[in-house]
Formats: sequence, C-alpha cells, structure tokens
Amino acid sequence: MRSVSIISVGLTRFGEHWDKNFKELIAEAGTKAIVDSGLERKDIQAVYGGCMASGRFVGQEHIGALIADQLGLNPIPATRIEAACASGGVALRNGYMAVGSGMYDVVAVGGVEKMTEVSTEDAGYALGGAGDQETELFMGASFPALYAMMARAHMKEFGTTEEQMAAVSVKNHKNAVHNEYAQFRSEITIEDVMKSGYIASPLKLLDCSPITDGAAAVILCATDVAKKMKLVDKAVEIIASAQTSDTLALAHRKNLWETKAAKIAADEAYKQAGIKAKDVSFAEVHDCFSPAEIMAIEALGFCKQGEGGKFTEQGNTAIGGTIPVNTSGGLKAFGHAIGATGIKQAIEAYWQLNNMAGKRQVKGAEIGLSHNVGGSGATCVVHLYRKV
Amino acid sequence: MRSVSIISVGLTRFGEHWDKNFKELIAEAGTKAIVDSGLERKDIQAVYGGCMASGRFVGQEHIGALIADQLGLNPIPATRIEAACASGGVALRNGYMAVGSGMYDVVAVGGVEKMTEVSTEDAGYALGGAGDQETELFMGASFPALYAMMARAHMKEFGTTEEQMAAVSVKNHKNAVHNEYAQFRSEITIEDVMKSGYIASPLKLLDCSPITDGAAAVILCATDVAKKMKLVDKAVEIIASAQTSDTLALAHRKNLWETKAAKIAADEAYKQAGIKAKDVSFAEVHDCFSPAEIMAIEALGFCKQGEGGKFTEQGNTAIGGTIPVNTSGGLKAFGHAIGATGIKQAIEAYWQLNNMAGKRQVKGAEIGLSHNVGGSGATCVVHLYRKV
Repeated sequence: MRSVSIISVGLTRFGEHWDKNFKELIAEAGTKAIVDSGLERKDIQAVYGGCMASGRFVGQEHIGALIADQLGLNPIPATRIEAACASGGVALRNGYMAVGSGMYDVVAVGGVEKMTEVSTEDAGYALGGAGDQETELFMGASFPALYAMMARAHMKEFGTTEEQMAAVSVKNHKNAVHNEYAQFRSEITIEDVMKSGYIASPLKLLDCSPITDGAAAVILCATDVAKKMKLVDKAVEIIASAQTSDTLALAHRKNLWETKAAKIAADEAYKQAGIKAKDVSFAEVHDCFSPAEIMAIEALGFCKQGEGGKFTEQGNTAIGGTIPVNTSGGLKAFGHAIGATGIKQAIEAYWQLNNMAGKRQVKGAEIGLSHNVGGSGATCVVHLYRKV
Repeated sequence: MRSVSIISVGLTRFGEHWDKNFKELIAEAGTKAIVDSGLERKDIQAVYGGCMASGRFVGQEHIGALIADQLGLNPIPATRIEAACASGGVALRNGYMAVGSGMYDVVAVGGVEKMTEVSTEDAGYALGGAGDQETELFMGASFPALYAMMARAHMKEFGTTEEQMAAVSVKNHKNAVHNEYAQFRSEITIEDVMKSGYIASPLKLLDCSPITDGAAAVILCATDVAKKMKLVDKAVEIIASAQTSDTLALAHRKNLWETKAAKIAADEAYKQAGIKAKDVSFAEVHDCFSPAEIMAIEALGFCKQGEGGKFTEQGNTAIGGTIPVNTSGGLKAFGHAIGATGIKQAIEAYWQLNNMAGKRQVKGAEIGLSHNVGGSGATCVVHLYRKV
C-alpha cells in the first residue's frame, strides 16, 4: 500500500437542517472539499459515500450514484458503504484502500445522513437496524437500552459512576462551544446531566447523542502525486486504517463492559503505524452515549481497562489533558449525523494537525486518531493521521 | 492489480422463501461457498456484502457485520455495499479490488435480499429508492413506468416492437426451465406475454422481473495463492471489472434509448481484458424489464445500436445462438433478489466456464460477461471471466 493523504475537507454544520434537503447537504460538503482541493472535478476518479439508513430516513437508496450525480462527477465509479454508525469511517477506509492500492490517484469520500425528516419513533426504528433487530430491537430494546446494559455492566465490574459518565458529556459540550459546525454550542454541568431525566437507566437525556442532519467530505490523494502537484500544504497522511467486526447482538458477547472489536482494531492500527497508544496526541472517539467514550478510551489503550470513568473525571481527556478526546465536541455535542460522523472525525484530525482548530487546538498535535463504531460495537474502524 | 479468481460459489434457490429469514438465506449461500472452497473460516480475511434495501424490507441495516456474524467470521472487516440493483456487482468489484491490490489473499463476497416480508406497495416504495425519489417516484412514477418510458423511446427511435421485447422474456423463461435455482421454471409464449396485462404501457406483467428472496456468495482468492494451495480445479479468473455512474433521474439524460453508463463500463472492461465484444461466449445481463436486455446487448456491443429487438427475435441470444444471453434465466425468470443478483450472475459465469450448466450449457464457452445495473442505469458494473 502506498501512502494516502487527505488534501482537503468539506463539512456542513451539524444540526437540524429544515432548510436543506439530503441532496443539498451532499452538495454543500462535497463542493467545499472539491473546491478547496485545488483540483478539477475531472481529476476525481472514484467516489465512496457512507450512509446508514437513507432508505428509512428519506426513502432514497442508490446513494453512491446520487452523490456522483449531485457533484457532477459522472461517469466515475460511485459506491455507497453502509456499516451503521461506522458508515463514514468504513467509507474512508475503502477510499484509502482504492488509492493505496494504486488503482486511483484521487478519490472523494463523503458521509451523509438526514435524520429529521421522520418522527422520533421512526428514527428509533431506523437506528435499531444497527443492532440485531430480530433478537434485540423487535424484542423491545431501544439503542439507548443496549448501551444502558453495557453501562450497567461497566458500573458493576469496575465501579464506574453515573457522574463519571456525565463528565464525558460535560467535557464534550465544553469543546463544542468553540466549534462553529457543532449542533450544541452551550456548556452543561454534571448536575444538568444528572437531572436531565432517564432515557434508559443509567443513561439520561444528556448522556445521549442527538438526532442530526449533516454531511462531510474529504478528498484523498496518493501522497506522492499530491507532492508532485504541490497539493501538500495542508495534506494529512492516513498512517493506519483498521476495521474489525464483532457479533451483532450483545447476547453473543463474552461480556458487555468492553468493546472487543475496538481493541483489535486499535492494536492493528498502532501496529500499521509503528506507534503506541501513548504516541497519540488527540482522539475523536465514538461517544454515541457517554459510557461509549469511557469504553473507547480503555479499548484504545489511553488508560487501563476499567479506569476510563476516573480517567475522564480527572480531566485527562480534556483539552490540555494528557490525551484530549473529542475536541470537536464528539457525537454528543457536535451531533451525530450517522453516515457523516466517521468523515467528520477525520476532518477534526485534519484541522488539529494543521493547527486550524482555534480555541480547541491541541498544542503540538502530531498524531491524531479516529474511532468510529457501528451499532453496539459490531463494526469498529480506527484511523491514525499525521501531517505530511 | 494481480490476478483474482472465484474459487467457489454458494447460492440459495431464488423465489419466495416463506420458511427462511434474511439471516438463514445468508447462512445457506455463505456456508456453501466456504465449504466448497476447501478453505477454513479462519482463512477468510474480509467480507463484502451487497444489499439494496434491507432497512425497508426487513428493518435491518449493518449488513456487513451481520454477514460476518452469521458465518462465524468475526473479527474480520465486513462491509456492506449498496448500489441499488447493482449492489451485488459492486460488492464483487470491491472484493476483487481488495484481493487484486494485495491487501488480502482471500475474501468472501455475497449478496442478499429478502423482499417478501412487506406488501407489494411497500416493496414498490423501497425499490423506488433506486431512482430519484424526489423528482421521479414521489411525483408518481413507479419503476416499471421509468423503464416504460425508456422502452417507448427505443420503440420510437428504432421501431422496436412489443413482440421483440416479449421475446426476451420467452427466451429467459426457456433457459430457467433447466435451472434448479430459478424462481420460474415454466416456458411462456409471445402470446402469453402480450396478453399478460399492462403494468406501465408498453410493459406487461411478463416483461417485468419478480419480487424475490435469495442470497448468493463467492469466495475470491488471489490466483497465484490459489495455485499454490491447489484450489484452481474450478477457479474462474475475473479478467476485468469496470464500474460507472450516470444521472440518477432519467430527466437529466441526453436520451432514453441508450444506457450510457453500460457502454462506458463495457468499453473499459473490454480494454482491461484486451478483448472485443465478439470474443464473449455468453453474457448475464440485467433484464429487470425486457427492454433493459435489448438496451444491454446494444450497449455491450453484441449488436448494433437500435437492432437489439430484431437481434433477439432472430434467436441470436438464445442458447445455441451467436451470443447466448441470460442462460441462467435472467432476472425475469431466475428471479431478482436485488442485492444477490450481481453475485448470481458471476455464479452462472462460474458454472458455464466449468462446463457445469447442464442442459443450458454454452458449448465451448471461453469468456463470460456479467452486466449489473442499478436503478434505471445510474450505476453499471461489468465483469469479464475466463477459466484459470
């Protein structure tokens, strides 16, 4: 595999876009990325798009062709990737492989989800498709309920507290204040989270990521080609890309307090890049629910198994801490436009490594990590990034 | 790109599977392919699965992880590809790229759709997602109506007749009689088609492919690795893989009587393989509606533009003709389990090239072609095959 870099990015604001439809979100993010790349549309040789449940959210499938059409990229190959909430990250990995293999020099990778067109009940049903509908969701579990069970297992095994989980949301809201693309730009307190009402005990409203519309896009280029074309001013190299799977249903896992697929993916990514967890400067992790961030930082090796709650509470994952996590605001406060999330994580890495993150900048950032999870952990994809 | 071969295949019967659910179809086809490969589960390094609209048909997304889980393949990377009715073909291409690039030696590629769990109305809505819902389907067009417009344009431009389109269905039903996996194994006549009642004029019921459940799987292996492991007895090499895109909506095309994406994909595939259309021994083409086969054989260069109707009527595409088309029975008679169709086409090529097609065997078959289309032509993927 040859070296692959992100040479430009495009992002819509995440939030409730009542004034923009599915196609317009794609056009906005995609056009930004193309224009900022310094390339022409004709230079782009393939498109990969991540999207989870457009069929249920907007009645539309065939998302690869739709993206190519919307961005005026026909007749290049255009492929939609679906891996539940990891759709964006897996799309990024497929684009990375397509360029790394030498098949293409330049590909566009995007992610999109328009979730506000349906009722909350219908959205819950659509999202349930990320788990095992037959044995979990159809039997009455909601997605918050699945993560609540994982949280309970973690609390029982390691003594993790609801306040420690709340600290994840508090930190992520604090980071999002400084992100103009974020859905929620207001600070919250531990007390706010604790009083926000149970959704599925122990998870309360402010432990949960929201329903979000948004799109994100990056242009990938072979690093040597980008160098020749002098497109490396801001280029960020993808130095590792690892993807794993686990059982779809929680019932088939050995325990509920760890995310095994994430551990395997992280180990594989560190091996690819020849680094260790301690070498990572910052990480965007998949905090669809606050306990998910605690389990993520353990799986990624930033702290010991079981100590993620305390580690967070002590401020280690805050900006200025030993390993800043979710500087973007995370899924909780930045928003979670499912298919777009994995790409938005890569964009935060691009901004951080280019020293473009303003008030949320991690000083001296050298290596970034993104961790994108599908469902309750049945897919995990980890990427590592470094400035070219 | 190094050489990639299909070393084994697995297929369920196509039809209405009231006794098997979505997961069981995957297990049946996938297990067959794995067992017949002579490899162990642990030898498989990645999975690609094509599926169009499981979210609307069975409420389930996250199909990559589901397939890996169902086949006991965790924790390998598992990715779902969606490209409407070309989902299977595009999944095959992604598996081909993953092995061809040298990233993996062995990958499993599958396709699945379970369409009979919902009402015909809901199925129509789900399938509408292959077109431009916003400007076509939501405005009242059904998918038969879109293809009816294409058929009308072809009739007007070239004088193609309804009887010539009917000849496609008659031929494909005749072929399916000899295929134990086919949904409809009964012969029909031109008169049967003409009297079968208009769905969207000029298309009648027997011009249309059916609602189908089914799954299909193949194991891909680097050809040199397969040779070393002595797994090439039946191996069929993929000698070309080309994918293209076109506008999602018919309204944005220059004309409705040709499928431009198919022409470009075919030219690219012939170039990759260093052959010409006349070198192809047989082809599986995307006859979702009978006029689609006529447009396909023109786009693939088997006859001149506009002469597909006459060419079919004269028997050139029958088994024993100059270029047998849809020996499997095609989408019309074999059935069209959307996500599985592209893989099933590759399986027919595997059987034909291994002289395993029984009474529908094309004598002296050397090179096979598959042509898989998404929606009304916004995605096209063409593969070429030859015995190792």
